[in-house]
Amino acid sequence: MGYEGSVRIGELSRTTGVPVPTIKYYVREGLLPAGTRTHPNQVDYTDTHAHRLRLVRAMVEVGRLPIGRVRELLAEVDEPTRGPDTLYGILGAALLTSAGRTEPVHATETERAEIERWLADRGFRVPEGYAEGVAEVLATFRRLGVPELAGLLDGYATAAMAVAEVDLAVLAAVPDRDAAAETMIVGTVLGDALFAALRRIAQATVSARVFPGPPDQSQC
Amino acid sequence: MGYEGSVRIGELSRTTGVPVPTIKYYVREGLLPAGTRTHPNQVDYTDTHAHRLRLVRAMVEVGRLPIGRVRELLAEVDEPTRGPDTLYGILGAALLTSAGRTEPVHATETERAEIERWLADRGFRVPEGYAEGVAEVLATFRRLGVPELAGLLDGYATAAMAVAEVDLAVLAAVPDRDAAAETMIVGTVLGDALFAALRRIAQATVSARVFPGPPDQSQC
Repeated sequence: MGYEGSVRIGELSRTTGVPVPTIKYYVREGLLPAGTRTHPNQVDYTDTHAHRLRLVRAMVEVGRLPIGRVRELLAEVDEPTRGPDTLYGILGAALLTSAGRTEPVHATETERAEIERWLADRGFRVPEGYAEGVAEVLATFRRLGVPELAGLLDGYATAAMAVAEVDLAVLAAVPDRDAAAETMIVGTVLGDALFAALRRIAQATVSARVFPGPPDQSQC
Repeated sequence: MGYEGSVRIGELSRTTGVPVPTIKYYVREGLLPAGTRTHPNQVDYTDTHAHRLRLVRAMVEVGRLPIGRVRELLAEVDEPTRGPDTLYGILGAALLTSAGRTEPVHATETERAEIERWLADRGFRVPEGYAEGVAEVLATFRRLGVPELAGLLDGYATAAMAVAEVDLAVLAAVPDRDAAAETMIVGTVLGDALFAALRRIAQATVSARVFPGPPDQSQC
């Protein structure tokens, strides 16, 4: 398990930069295993706790995931029998579905069937629930009076395939196969944040070219 | 303003599918203008309210944005003097920064400078705060013991440019220029959700090819 001595909560907080009340909150929420009580008033934590704590923190702070989804993803980290393919399906489901969602779905049966056909025609393998996700966004464009935005679909699908090729190439090259599930989760959650930032930068770049506007006042 | 008669809250709820308590909550939170009191016990709502309500709902439900960020984005919809370029910067900032964030930043000065140089070398125009966002994800990969994931950067940057080209081409073609800010926000927020769904589908597709595994039990 990689234990190399143990520390008290103050030291765990100091080395990870996570405040003590936050550590206690994560333990209560089941995101971090409780420490070992070695004395009536002493609880010890190990390197394993520090590692898990950094992972939780990264998903919450950088990945901006709500606690409930972090819990779902950690359950996958701790389940070593999954293949990467299954894992991607689970990961995606955990990232996309909001646990408490009870609102009705707006896409019609016809719209969903149409998207399923479109995805199948492109040779996509579609994990359960995803065609619905795509159909839902398109139905929302229509409801908001901008059906033209459905034009994003083709170009996005091509770019998404390019991103997935990069994901798999990089993830498959990470040496520690024991930590494959964790690497995949980190790569997917933080990869989303990374891609989102690069996408905004790219939009600003293309936008400045398409709409030159007045000379820029800023230093970028 | 496009008013064509007015309705009471029950009818507004029925036509938009948003429950009455939720409508009242959005009004309290400043996401929806209050209706007009036409009688001591009657408040009227118009098409403008219905439209705004659908927009809020789309950002919360499909875009999965927290209320605070929806409020920031709506302030941009209601500010008609922005050019698309400025708007992208503001949009991105509203989407990426979490209002209550007080945690220290993990990327070092050197790491940030390195990323800024890398982005400049690629000809990227970088809105304020974005180089930091990229540096932060890379620093987090390192802290989590998977620095190899920095290998995602190059391929992501290329794909992000492809996505931005699609965004601008589609958004620029939407006919109603008066609603440009709203279209851009809808396109960006829901476009993120659309791209995320397509990315998971693409990952499952590439993953199934790279790791064929046992014959699939499911029907996809």
